[in-house]
Amino acid sequence: MGLHILILNGPNLNWLGRREPGIYGSTSWPEIQAELEEYAAARGVTITCRQSNHEGVLIDILQEGADVFDAVVLNAGGLTHTSVALRDCVAALPVPVVEVHLSNVYAREEFRHRSLLAPVVAGQISGFGPLSYRLGLEAAIALAEKRKRR
Amino acid sequence: MGLHILILNGPNLNWLGRREPGIYGSTSWPEIQAELEEYAAARGVTITCRQSNHEGVLIDILQEGADVFDAVVLNAGGLTHTSVALRDCVAALPVPVVEVHLSNVYAREEFRHRSLLAPVVAGQISGFGPLSYRLGLEAAIALAEKRKRR
Amino acid sequence: MGLHILILNGPNLNWLGRREPGIYGSTSWPEIQAELEEYAAARGVTITCRQSNHEGVLIDILQEGADVFDAVVLNAGGLTHTSVALRDCVAALPVPVVEVHLSNVYAREEFRHRSLLAPVVAGQISGFGPLSYRLGLEAAIALAEKRKRR
Amino acid sequence: MGLHILILNGPNLNWLGRREPGIYGSTSWPEIQAELEEYAAARGVTITCRQSNHEGVLIDILQEGADVFDAVVLNAGGLTHTSVALRDCVAALPVPVVEVHLSNVYAREEFRHRSLLAPVVAGQISGFGPLSYRLGLEAAIALAEKRKRR
Amino acid sequence: MGLHILILNGPNLNWLGRREPGIYGSTSWPEIQAELEEYAAARGVTITCRQSNHEGVLIDILQEGADVFDAVVLNAGGLTHTSVALRDCVAALPVPVVEVHLSNVYAREEFRHRSLLAPVVAGQISGFGPLSYRLGLEAAIALAEKRKRR
Amino acid sequence: MGLHILILNGPNLNWLGRREPGIYGSTSWPEIQAELEEYAAARGVTITCRQSNHEGVLIDILQEGADVFDAVVLNAGGLTHTSVALRDCVAALPVPVVEVHLSNVYAREEFRHRSLLAPVVAGQISGFGPLSYRLGLEAAIALAEKRKRR
Amino acid sequence: MGLHILILNGPNLNWLGRREPGIYGSTSWPEIQAELEEYAAARGVTITCRQSNHEGVLIDILQEGADVFDAVVLNAGGLTHTSVALRDCVAALPVPVVEVHLSNVYAREEFRHRSLLAPVVAGQISGFGPLSYRLGLEAAIALAEKRKRR
Amino acid sequence: MGLHILILNGPNLNWLGRREPGIYGSTSWPEIQAELEEYAAARGVTITCRQSNHEGVLIDILQEGADVFDAVVLNAGGLTHTSVALRDCVAALPVPVVEVHLSNVYAREEFRHRSLLAPVVAGQISGFGPLSYRLGLEAAIALAEKRKRR
Amino acid sequence: MGLHILILNGPNLNWLGRREPGIYGSTSWPEIQAELEEYAAARGVTITCRQSNHEGVLIDILQEGADVFDAVVLNAGGLTHTSVALRDCVAALPVPVVEVHLSNVYAREEFRHRSLLAPVVAGQISGFGPLSYRLGLEAAIALAEKRKRR
Amino acid sequence: MGLHILILNGPNLNWLGRREPGIYGSTSWPEIQAELEEYAAARGVTITCRQSNHEGVLIDILQEGADVFDAVVLNAGGLTHTSVALRDCVAALPVPVVEVHLSNVYAREEFRHRSLLAPVVAGQISGFGPLSYRLGLEAAIALAEKRKRR
Amino acid sequence: MGLHILILNGPNLNWLGRREPGIYGSTSWPEIQAELEEYAAARGVTITCRQSNHEGVLIDILQEGADVFDAVVLNAGGLTHTSVALRDCVAALPVPVVEVHLSNVYAREEFRHRSLLAPVVAGQISGFGPLSYRLGLEAAIALAEKRKRR
Amino acid sequence: MGLHILILNGPNLNWLGRREPGIYGSTSWPEIQAELEEYAAARGVTITCRQSNHEGVLIDILQEGADVFDAVVLNAGGLTHTSVALRDCVAALPVPVVEVHLSNVYAREEFRHRSLLAPVVAGQISGFGPLSYRLGLEAAIALAEKRKRR
Repeated sequence: MGLHILILNGPNLNWLGRREPGIYGSTSWPEIQAELEEYAAARGVTITCRQSNHEGVLIDILQEGADVFDAVVLNAGGLTHTSVALRDCVAALPVPVVEVHLSNVYAREEFRHRSLLAPVVAGQISGFGPLSYRLGLEAAIALAEKRKRR
Repeated sequence: MGLHILILNGPNLNWLGRREPGIYGSTSWPEIQAELEEYAAARGVTITCRQSNHEGVLIDILQEGADVFDAVVLNAGGLTHTSVALRDCVAALPVPVVEVHLSNVYAREEFRHRSLLAPVVAGQISGFGPLSYRLGLEAAIALAEKRKRR
Repeated sequence: MGLHILILNGPNLNWLGRREPGIYGSTSWPEIQAELEEYAAARGVTITCRQSNHEGVLIDILQEGADVFDAVVLNAGGLTHTSVALRDCVAALPVPVVEVHLSNVYAREEFRHRSLLAPVVAGQISGFGPLSYRLGLEAAIALAEKRKRR
Repeated sequence: MGLHILILNGPNLNWLGRREPGIYGSTSWPEIQAELEEYAAARGVTITCRQSNHEGVLIDILQEGADVFDAVVLNAGGLTHTSVALRDCVAALPVPVVEVHLSNVYAREEFRHRSLLAPVVAGQISGFGPLSYRLGLEAAIALAEKRKRR
Repeated sequence: MGLHILILNGPNLNWLGRREPGIYGSTSWPEIQAELEEYAAARGVTITCRQSNHEGVLIDILQEGADVFDAVVLNAGGLTHTSVALRDCVAALPVPVVEVHLSNVYAREEFRHRSLLAPVVAGQISGFGPLSYRLGLEAAIALAEKRKRR
Repeated sequence: MGLHILILNGPNLNWLGRREPGIYGSTSWPEIQAELEEYAAARGVTITCRQSNHEGVLIDILQEGADVFDAVVLNAGGLTHTSVALRDCVAALPVPVVEVHLSNVYAREEFRHRSLLAPVVAGQISGFGPLSYRLGLEAAIALAEKRKRR
Repeated sequence: MGLHILILNGPNLNWLGRREPGIYGSTSWPEIQAELEEYAAARGVTITCRQSNHEGVLIDILQEGADVFDAVVLNAGGLTHTSVALRDCVAALPVPVVEVHLSNVYAREEFRHRSLLAPVVAGQISGFGPLSYRLGLEAAIALAEKRKRR
Repeated sequence: MGLHILILNGPNLNWLGRREPGIYGSTSWPEIQAELEEYAAARGVTITCRQSNHEGVLIDILQEGADVFDAVVLNAGGLTHTSVALRDCVAALPVPVVEVHLSNVYAREEFRHRSLLAPVVAGQISGFGPLSYRLGLEAAIALAEKRKRR
Repeated sequence: MGLHILILNGPNLNWLGRREPGIYGSTSWPEIQAELEEYAAARGVTITCRQSNHEGVLIDILQEGADVFDAVVLNAGGLTHTSVALRDCVAALPVPVVEVHLSNVYAREEFRHRSLLAPVVAGQISGFGPLSYRLGLEAAIALAEKRKRR
Repeated sequence: MGLHILILNGPNLNWLGRREPGIYGSTSWPEIQAELEEYAAARGVTITCRQSNHEGVLIDILQEGADVFDAVVLNAGGLTHTSVALRDCVAALPVPVVEVHLSNVYAREEFRHRSLLAPVVAGQISGFGPLSYRLGLEAAIALAEKRKRR
Repeated sequence: MGLHILILNGPNLNWLGRREPGIYGSTSWPEIQAELEEYAAARGVTITCRQSNHEGVLIDILQEGADVFDAVVLNAGGLTHTSVALRDCVAALPVPVVEVHLSNVYAREEFRHRSLLAPVVAGQISGFGPLSYRLGLEAAIALAEKRKRR
Repeated sequence: MGLHILILNGPNLNWLGRREPGIYGSTSWPEIQAELEEYAAARGVTITCRQSNHEGVLIDILQEGADVFDAVVLNAGGLTHTSVALRDCVAALPVPVVEVHLSNVYAREEFRHRSLLAPVVAGQISGFGPLSYRLGLEAAIALAEKRKRR
């Protein structure tokens, strides 16, 4: 049976295209999602996209999806830098998690340079705009396939 | 048409009057709200007051109100010092936000001296008790009027 | 009338037994709860156990329980280290709060060494696995009894 | 008898309108003062405006005015961040002091984020341009009235 | 044969009841010891209580007791925050050590927030006054029993 | 005419497969290079692979290639964290640079958490082993194509 | 000829007795000066007392007095912690300087723990209230006598 | 009955005169003690001088002397900067303690700038060589007399 | 018409030649000024030399000279490291400012390594003794000429 | 015989005019060198100009030139902030070294504010563009002449 | 007459072989001492070995041995990182001291990276297990011989 | 077959005897090498001595020697404190590396107190001048022999 990947977005990512376009670009999330779905389909992979502004909801989604998905592509938005609870949840997940960011967080404010998630994810991709998600999906598929083979 | 201002309160501000009166005073929120409504009415301005203990709900309210309100008076409570997600949301809002605090946060614990919101709001008012809200509302009206004129 | 104690768990503690057993042990929460209930019954004390992955929900529970419970045993999970909002809520509670941790947080990552809650709780117990809860309950009962006597 | 409020400006504020208008706006001090006097007159309050580039002169003015004025609106300019002597003077004053800033100091250089005065003033208002002074005057009047009533 | 537990107190704990009663309470050590002995007797456990103001003597006691006692309840007083030598000794002990504090060290001076012992003990209990010792003894007994079973 | 991408490796990356395989995997560089060449050929792209243990040589290569290559995939190894000279060179390049790392640098020693290059590259990919290079090449091609179109 | 000692007071010390009596005591400066003069007279020493709220004036006094006085007793008030200019002046003086403080500065705010003057004065006396001046005068006389003998 | 003052010296102060004379001078302790005794006798005061290289012994002496002496002059040597245990003991003493240092500790290594004792003593005198003790004794007598009068 | 350059000296620079000659050399200010005047005359440039120990006076001079002088050579002495007020004044000046130091400030105490002025001046020259002024004057002339040409 | 001065440039300075002209200006190195040679010729001084992107080559050049040149003008580029090896080499040179920078390094990123070279060079000139070199040459000549005279 | 060297061990080193063998190896102290004595005998050198868990005793031994021994090999155990008193004693000794460590302290916890003794000893040897002592003895002999020759 | 040890020197060590003799002594490298060769010959060990001012060359030498030498004695000079690339190379070597320093680096500038190499070498010897190399060679031989035996 084919792989099933969760694409999970944190706070304010529902505003993509509208929010600070100088930093986040003018592509909206539905446009990015369409591209991701096309790519996934071509690879024979199913994707599910979720977003929430609530830390607790993101944790609920990850816990409930622990036995459903084969890998996660996670853009936790501002929670990346502040949520130990989300980090603990990611660390406890049995499936690989790929951290993605639209902007180059290292070229922004000091407090965005530390990701609490980074030490517990498989890897991180940042700075390529919507392409970050596509590369992240690719990495997630590769990690999920390798895990299945084990 | 008249201005419409959102007064948004974060965690524990529903407990005003009951919570640590030595720091926050003994006036309850309904009393403060009554005063604000009276002041707003006299100025021909409509206000809407909301409170939540949930970071995600506060972000939802701000996003949903982005095209409804002309300005925001925000007391984010403890989230002031910890929420990058709320900061990102405020930074993305098209309308001016005025940060208010009942207590003089700079005369309290070290960790209350840094506001993650301060760099992305229009201005900050702290330490005047319930008067902080009234002055904040006044500032919000002035900023909204200036914005309309542009 | 007998004492009523709230046992409140924060993010990811619903995954006990499943989550990183090397750190948190392999006992699940229902097993721990059963033990706590047995102990409480023997002491003639009622306990209520709640868990949430949402900071806001935890604050709601504490506020709503302020006049219901005689003491609280709180394991705030990852929020221990990041939530000023939860700290403000605990500081405002009229009843004693006992902070507990399953693992020895001081033997783990640097960012777990600081508890924002510690300065506003009555005391802290960490590192004894499920026993931390039982000792915490015992302490909560003692504190509640002393408070009643005053 | 009516209230008497001191509006005290520190270094470089005599250059308002001329100095870095991108940050401080193009309104000159006489224009701001005129507005403040009009507002004060309407409230039946007397104001006295003073400025000095000298830390020592500012302290002299505050000491000499301690028994003359009912409250102070203070914009200490660059001394805000460096003068323990001014802080000690403010802490020793028997009347309430309101700290005001034209610019949002928290959106500027790191060294402007710490105000040595903030912990010893009644409250702080920053970021609203000339309006900061008007709101500050309003707060000063309210605090002076409350003090008189005691 | 029954368990034998060492209760070891560091500098100034011989002054309990006399020393800063606002922080440490007015119960003297003999009173606490009597309670601990009663509790131990009821559990069929032997306890030995020792105190010294000398870091070196505390290390000597721990080394000499390494093969005598089944667990240790340790309140190292001020040495908690400064003694690497004591930490090294505790780390080398074959039996479990429980760290206890009468006061809530996290609500006191900054330098008391770091315990050099915490990372090498089994767990920590702080803030419950004399009850801290009783809970610590209980934990020590549980840990010693578990160790015997292995 | 087709794109020409430079893959540039810094110190010790010639030892891949031999060096600390627990961290860097057991695949040697020639194997990775073969995969990259295959991928590039399929995309109609030419790649050139270079390695040096010398900071100065890496800068020479980047300067000389500034008008030859359309983009750069750069793994600067240990120089990532220490070389301002390399950073200055990257910042001066007219073509996009993609930073890649085999290991998850954020899960390793503290001093590896800061990349001096990160703020001046287009984006960063880390933690996916040899796949990091393939994703990096993909990103470099996309960035080079976008640049050509401008 | 007899010794001539300068007693120099910095900002706000003219307010002694009036200013924060909980910290600085209720003795006024004239009372302290009277005691110092009596003591000096008994020792056959002349003293001159000066005070200024101006850093520049203090430096002027010290420079002008360099060839007049045999030693200086200096309480620089808030400038103690901030004035490199005053430190440079003290370091350049040919006569010994004794630093005094009424309050125990080490038991107050963190920023009062560092004296910029301390490394360039002969010695420091703090915490004894008015007695600090008398002891400081005594030390200054001893140092001046020793210097004369050389 | 006359006052009884304890002069207590910490580690290495038995080596005075021999130890690093460039820093500590060439006067030996017996010479200093003789001078102190002469001064005390003239004031009708009894002094007892003790020294130990052992932190624990110093604490024992202070505890045992708590009801014997009217004040303490303490030079804790290197323990000044490291001993929380000694600080706790001093804080618990019912009599005033005067901290003295021969050298100007603020003109030496960084780690000597912080005295753990300073916040809990009455006052501090440093930098005057043997004179520091004499001034310290004078201060101790004054504090003891004031305490008796209360 | 010829250029007019202000040479402005801060605290203690009137003592050159007398003050710590090991650091500042034995040339007095009048000697340096004579050399500068000779050099200026040869270049057809007028110079005005001013000195003050008062931060406020320095600011007054700079403000009053803003429309008189074509450039400023500034040695702010100890205020270099502490005065935000002076920095604000320099930042507001319409003419270029050249920062000079006699000594190599980077080879001295840590607190002299940070110049608050450096980020807002045109450039900095330090360590060459009196030559620093001559090079600074040369730079000031060049900058003033370039500005005139614009 | 005439003086011989080495002008030594570090990494990326061969790209002057091409590299980030907003920061470094649009003048190329050959243009600057031509000006320096003209100036040197007029002073009867010989100059040799060298550049390398290699830290080791820069050290080799300085060592080999130690007995050839009378002074050095050094712009170490990015190595200024990172190379202890270069600092050690400069500290060991028998001839004076003048540090120059085109840009005002103190107005740029935090990590450029610390120069490892600054404490071991004679003096530093920064921020005047190509003029920095000319002033640096002038200083180097003056220092070399003074050294010859000794 | 032959040299006499003191080998002095601090806290917990009497437990060698028993204590954390993964870090300190399984050789006991008597075995190491035997080897050292054999080596010393072959060199015609006398050694005396002492150990104490007491900081004060170690200082007593060093003071008493100051005129007896020609050099010291010192492993201060955990006191290495905390004892200013021991450092002061070592700094005052007339004979050379060689600091040794069994383990590589720089590969362990952060707080073990700083040795308070290192700046005042002749040199340091760490990481070679029992061999550290033998090399340390060799160095001590060489230093003692060089000192005798002077 | 006999052991073969590499003695590798970093930047500026070719200048020994000439460079800052107050710190590094007046013995030149050829003299030290002669002594090392004599010692090695007596032990039946071959040594090879190399030096470079280039970080990259040092890494090349270590990589090329990985299968040739049985151990390395490394004095990386200034690169000790800055080179992550060299550290990565040392960490990847299959043979033991002994870090040596002529001077006591811990008694020098703060930035020399951290060795990036220390955590990945077998052990460290510093402060004994040329003897450091001989002791280092001895340690290297012992480690190489132990490794051969395994």
